[in-house]
Amino acid sequence: MTQEKKAIVVGGGLVGTLWAIFLARRGYTVDVYESRGDMRQLGYSGGRSINLAMSERGWRAVRQAGIEDTIRKVAIPMEGRMLHNLSGDLAFQPYGEQGQAIYSVSRGGLNLELLRIADSFDQVRFHFNHRCRNIDPDRNAILFEDTQTGMRLEASAPLIFGADGAFSAVRNSLQKRPRFNFSQEYLDYAYKELCILPGPDGRHVMNAQALHIWPRGNFMLIALPNTDGSFTCTLFLPFEGPEAFEHLHTDEAIMSFFERNFPDAIPLMPALLEDFHSNPTSALATIRCSPWHSGQGILLLGDAAHAIVPFFGQGMNAGFEDCTLLDQMMDDYQEDWQQILPAFSHTRPKDANAIADLALANFIEMRDLVADPAFLLRKKIAALLHQKFGDDFLPMYSMVSFGHVPYSQALAEGKAQDQLLDRILALEDIEHNWASNPMVISLYQEWQQGR
Amino acid sequence: MTQEKKAIVVGGGLVGTLWAIFLARRGYTVDVYESRGDMRQLGYSGGRSINLAMSERGWRAVRQAGIEDTIRKVAIPMEGRMLHNLSGDLAFQPYGEQGQAIYSVSRGGLNLELLRIADSFDQVRFHFNHRCRNIDPDRNAILFEDTQTGMRLEASAPLIFGADGAFSAVRNSLQKRPRFNFSQEYLDYAYKELCILPGPDGRHVMNAQALHIWPRGNFMLIALPNTDGSFTCTLFLPFEGPEAFEHLHTDEAIMSFFERNFPDAIPLMPALLEDFHSNPTSALATIRCSPWHSGQGILLLGDAAHAIVPFFGQGMNAGFEDCTLLDQMMDDYQEDWQQILPAFSHTRPKDANAIADLALANFIEMRDLVADPAFLLRKKIAALLHQKFGDDFLPMYSMVSFGHVPYSQALAEGKAQDQLLDRILALEDIEHNWASNPMVISLYQEWQQGR
Repeated sequence: MTQEKKAIVVGGGLVGTLWAIFLARRGYTVDVYESRGDMRQLGYSGGRSINLAMSERGWRAVRQAGIEDTIRKVAIPMEGRMLHNLSGDLAFQPYGEQGQAIYSVSRGGLNLELLRIADSFDQVRFHFNHRCRNIDPDRNAILFEDTQTGMRLEASAPLIFGADGAFSAVRNSLQKRPRFNFSQEYLDYAYKELCILPGPDGRHVMNAQALHIWPRGNFMLIALPNTDGSFTCTLFLPFEGPEAFEHLHTDEAIMSFFERNFPDAIPLMPALLEDFHSNPTSALATIRCSPWHSGQGILLLGDAAHAIVPFFGQGMNAGFEDCTLLDQMMDDYQEDWQQILPAFSHTRPKDANAIADLALANFIEMRDLVADPAFLLRKKIAALLHQKFGDDFLPMYSMVSFGHVPYSQALAEGKAQDQLLDRILALEDIEHNWASNPMVISLYQEWQQGR
Repeated sequence: MTQEKKAIVVGGGLVGTLWAIFLARRGYTVDVYESRGDMRQLGYSGGRSINLAMSERGWRAVRQAGIEDTIRKVAIPMEGRMLHNLSGDLAFQPYGEQGQAIYSVSRGGLNLELLRIADSFDQVRFHFNHRCRNIDPDRNAILFEDTQTGMRLEASAPLIFGADGAFSAVRNSLQKRPRFNFSQEYLDYAYKELCILPGPDGRHVMNAQALHIWPRGNFMLIALPNTDGSFTCTLFLPFEGPEAFEHLHTDEAIMSFFERNFPDAIPLMPALLEDFHSNPTSALATIRCSPWHSGQGILLLGDAAHAIVPFFGQGMNAGFEDCTLLDQMMDDYQEDWQQILPAFSHTRPKDANAIADLALANFIEMRDLVADPAFLLRKKIAALLHQKFGDDFLPMYSMVSFGHVPYSQALAEGKAQDQLLDRILALEDIEHNWASNPMVISLYQEWQQGR
């Protein structure tokens, strides 16, 4: 198979730039088209410092791309959740075992790093301010518009990768073709970014080794640490309802809402009112589609193929894992893209759907269940079983965040575990005797044998 | 509430023209924009005579619009299904009681009638060759392009109705706004229109009071009568697989496929090969979205809001019922559209989703179950219960096709009936004693009391 080693990547975000690096390392010539300007000159146009949680799937991708060390420098380990109750009391829940952590990284900072690394390859060219207007899958061609001059130009290549995010123009173009399945589903919730500033000494004013959560039933506030001593906070709240964004338009209403719900956060957020008024109230969507490939050489990846809600911290990790898996397939199929594209498009969406479902379910866990005694008992028993039986009973959070089993397998395993835990939690007086009741182990053994 | 009685309807198809008539009868000035040319001069651009099955929900709408008599003239009653087995044997299954029928109508003929009637109102103006390019919900404005001159013009009105079909440009424009939920889901099946010509005497060569079905497990051929003595046939077949469109490219393959599966139809289809090659192989999609209203006065209706697969014959009926229900709401809310639009958008989608699900399920019934003895026994017992208990046990097909209960209620009732029928079919020797076994009645009574 002799195919010209030439590719177009649409989108210069996290997944687009990482994928350009993977391709360049394999000797491909890559043209990256990005609708926004060059963030090296303009700053990150996402504006504020949005944070992401990098976990093992993300790390494997940057390791495989040979850039792990550079990224490690801008990442802060978070070893667990720090829960804030209404009285300001704190409770720490580790994510995994000793030494396991997820990592807070700045989206803008990471994107800049990836852009610099990608641009250091001679055969990678960036074309900023180029917006995709249309795709012709029959000719593997794309029409771009230069957003500064209005000029249109066509580009084509044997391979075109649509990595242009949740509102992908490449996907919008494919959506008009027959047999393209697509759904976008919004939550009735919005989010707003807020900020906790560094203390007078320039250091973090709360424990910086944790992801902070103020769980309040059907809404929550979270905070992730930044390297400059600040925390980026996000308020997740319904658009409409008794406690909802629709009521928070005046200083008085906002302050009263925070006093009722997050009193311990107020002194840490001197710019609360200013941030609240000036930052957007943004919607949250899950986007699914199939097939991800089209024509002879077009493939969607990252958020363009599978945008999810942020509650499992897996959006970027799933997109980065797309790159790892594609890179592996380049070995498996000797870079025969006529095999790789349908194979990837056939196997990967079920995992994207699984993490989409897990992310939706994790919202309920974060905003509500983490403060529920029955839920905490369930977690304790799961931890006990893991301690006794090791990898034969790996908690779902660990499978997703610290491992590499396909998301769909983690979801199925988690459901099977839930059936066992339901039976254990129905045992008499389990809230007191969970650590010593021999039925816990015999139910586990029966469950394990029945699989 | 004093609002200018002025509306824009996007789409001059079945639902758009019918809704323009409803509005005109209420004294509204209506501008109808249609992307295609005037079918009164050009002929129906759908091309061949696609057939639709009009049932009671459709009739009520044209009755309420005052145009029932005109439409009756072009409709042919079909009182049941005529099944064709491989040997050419026929079996008739009535749809309902004596005198109940669904009606075969030509899409093009019906559309022409509706267009003529709508255009007979002074306050209805048609603008053909005008394609919707974009909607601005904040200003209730639409940008149109004249497809003949390329000129663009903006139109606005207090009310804008998007009735522009399954691939609605109005909906595409709304899809880009936050919080618009949308899905398009394709079947792995395609369809192709074929034709059975009239006999030498100009009359129908098969029973014209029936919808003919050649059920073949996972695919089927159907035929609906036309007033000119012909039948319009549709082949529903997988795109790929053992028996699939992918293999039917040569005369030899097509003839061999028909000889294997529909031998009795071949002599009735002299133009089979020509039709097969020249007619398109088209995909089948279900489209769902919400909310249907946007801004201050924009509403989707008909296929633009809820396109379904054709297997329950309810696509047009559901769109026409949208008109009936909106017309009723104009009375209920004294034409206060700020109440009507959210009320309709809040209540109607669940019924659209229900008929979408029923239509998908009915494909399996038509192509497979109608020839299954266990399914036929179930139908006989349902008919028996209906005969004994009347409206307390109304078969689901009758609720959908001959009644007006909301689709979601028909779906729920059908599921409840299925639970009873499952229990009855589990009775010993039921295939022989179904008509006399007293347990049938006592199980029914128990079920009825438990509701």
